[in-house]
Amino acid sequence: MTPQQATRDDRAPVTVLGLGPMGRALAGAFLTNGHRTTVWNRTASKADALVAKSAIRAATAAEAVAASDLVIVCVLDQDAVRTIVEQAAESLKGRTLVNLTTGTPEQARAMATWAAERGVDYLDGAIVTPAIGTPAARLFYSGPEDLYEAHRSTLASLGGTHTHLGTDAARAAAYDVSLLDLFWTAATGYLHALALADAQGIAAKDLTVDAQGIVGLVRDLIPVLADQVESRRYPGDGSNLVSAAAGIDHIIDATKASGLDAGVLSAARVAVLRAIEAGHGDDSFARVVEMFGSAQETVSMPSS
Amino acid sequence: MTPQQATRDDRAPVTVLGLGPMGRALAGAFLTNGHRTTVWNRTASKADALVAKSAIRAATAAEAVAASDLVIVCVLDQDAVRTIVEQAAESLKGRTLVNLTTGTPEQARAMATWAAERGVDYLDGAIVTPAIGTPAARLFYSGPEDLYEAHRSTLASLGGTHTHLGTDAARAAAYDVSLLDLFWTAATGYLHALALADAQGIAAKDLTVDAQGIVGLVRDLIPVLADQVESRRYPGDGSNLVSAAAGIDHIIDATKASGLDAGVLSAARVAVLRAIEAGHGDDSFARVVEMFGSAQETVSMPSS
Repeated sequence: MTPQQATRDDRAPVTVLGLGPMGRALAGAFLTNGHRTTVWNRTASKADALVAKSAIRAATAAEAVAASDLVIVCVLDQDAVRTIVEQAAESLKGRTLVNLTTGTPEQARAMATWAAERGVDYLDGAIVTPAIGTPAARLFYSGPEDLYEAHRSTLASLGGTHTHLGTDAARAAAYDVSLLDLFWTAATGYLHALALADAQGIAAKDLTVDAQGIVGLVRDLIPVLADQVESRRYPGDGSNLVSAAAGIDHIIDATKASGLDAGVLSAARVAVLRAIEAGHGDDSFARVVEMFGSAQETVSMPSS
Repeated sequence: MTPQQATRDDRAPVTVLGLGPMGRALAGAFLTNGHRTTVWNRTASKADALVAKSAIRAATAAEAVAASDLVIVCVLDQDAVRTIVEQAAESLKGRTLVNLTTGTPEQARAMATWAAERGVDYLDGAIVTPAIGTPAARLFYSGPEDLYEAHRSTLASLGGTHTHLGTDAARAAAYDVSLLDLFWTAATGYLHALALADAQGIAAKDLTVDAQGIVGLVRDLIPVLADQVESRRYPGDGSNLVSAAAGIDHIIDATKASGLDAGVLSAARVAVLRAIEAGHGDDSFARVVEMFGSAQETVSMPSS
């Protein structure tokens, strides 16, 4: 036996439940790194390509769970997680379940309770940037520290940066939903910008360099805005909320004039107007962070 | 006279109308670069700091215009521009007016018509990133090419990168509103993410590095999405609209559970649902670019 084979055989076996695009990427990374990888999916054919790379196909979720001490579940949503783990609850007992399915902090807490009641060791996790198997992957975990430490080296086979955020099972999901809130909002903003540009005869590619510049500007602003939010001081000397509102109004006007829906920015505008009506017109845009409470009084919106 | 003085005296005089934060930055950059700079603002005291740096204070907009062949106007909105240039229309005749006030493409066209009817040479302009006087400044211009070339070296005193986008006066504003659409949407997304994080006990600063990572991810995705949009091909093999909708639903659920307003992302969700209802669920998120038409049928939204 060569040293390389020894290393491979020493690698902990792992089971992956759910073989959508993300589950397949997870199983593929474990296989690439020499783990004996057992896979299961409701539609069995999703495993074909992985089996060709020497993954073991299990006939049922329970059979898949029985094959490894470490079980990863990554499916569409937490309802699907619950359905699968209920089927395999007996086999999961005494094993570690790492739930990488996107969900809310409340759902993470509920799953941790479910696991504790059934003698299942549980880590909640979140895949923030989905470049599994590459240095760009970014994963969060929360739950018992010793459990994370026990499986850390196996999880490292997924590539990228892994952070344990503490014992509260909800923590990984809390980071995840916050960061994905930013992701989907910004990505939607870019596509809406392309729709607006297209309506003016500007091709998507002609906007690429400047759109990347704008996003780079937002990236540079993040620590500045974070400082203001943490200190609850919002100096508006450079640019204030009144000028932000005027700027946003111009874009909404242009959007409507182009026959496009201005829903996203109109919703942003509501928060800006709330801040101005609350007497913060001279403050910076960061003040808007305090204006998302759904219990806020509805602002009478001037037509725009 | 030393060569340096000669250079300074050779620099074209310039007039700046409007001394809000941006107007003051513009006048300051011209002064720093040795232009004889005449300034005017409705509230005269806004000029005090610039006068201390040797700017010339004009008593009226018309007097300010008469002092220079190149006149920059940068005020809150195009209504304010119109009020000011109407006052100074006679003096503006035969001079060049560069309108750096934020506005819509339609407003740019209207101002170009106004100027043409009065014998005023007109360039519309847009300040996309407001770091005037630094290499990070980004300015667009549209209107007659020869006019831009004639004043190019003077405008370069504002720093950064300047691009002439063609003869259609509306072009600079079209780029500007598209890019600012992205900016305000992304910036709002970040502040909403901070509000959501705060509701989960996560401090703004703890999210900084990962929030910057997410924004960096969007920046890297921009050319990929632009390619899909230009080719009207939206391969969803890596991640499709159905999983995007599920992800967005999780965030909206978490937002509502935290007692926060989910307006921005709910508006984004409408566009995603439109795409799925139109049969594009297996496509990538970039397909959403086609779903912002306000004439689209309203989608019956399942409660989320």
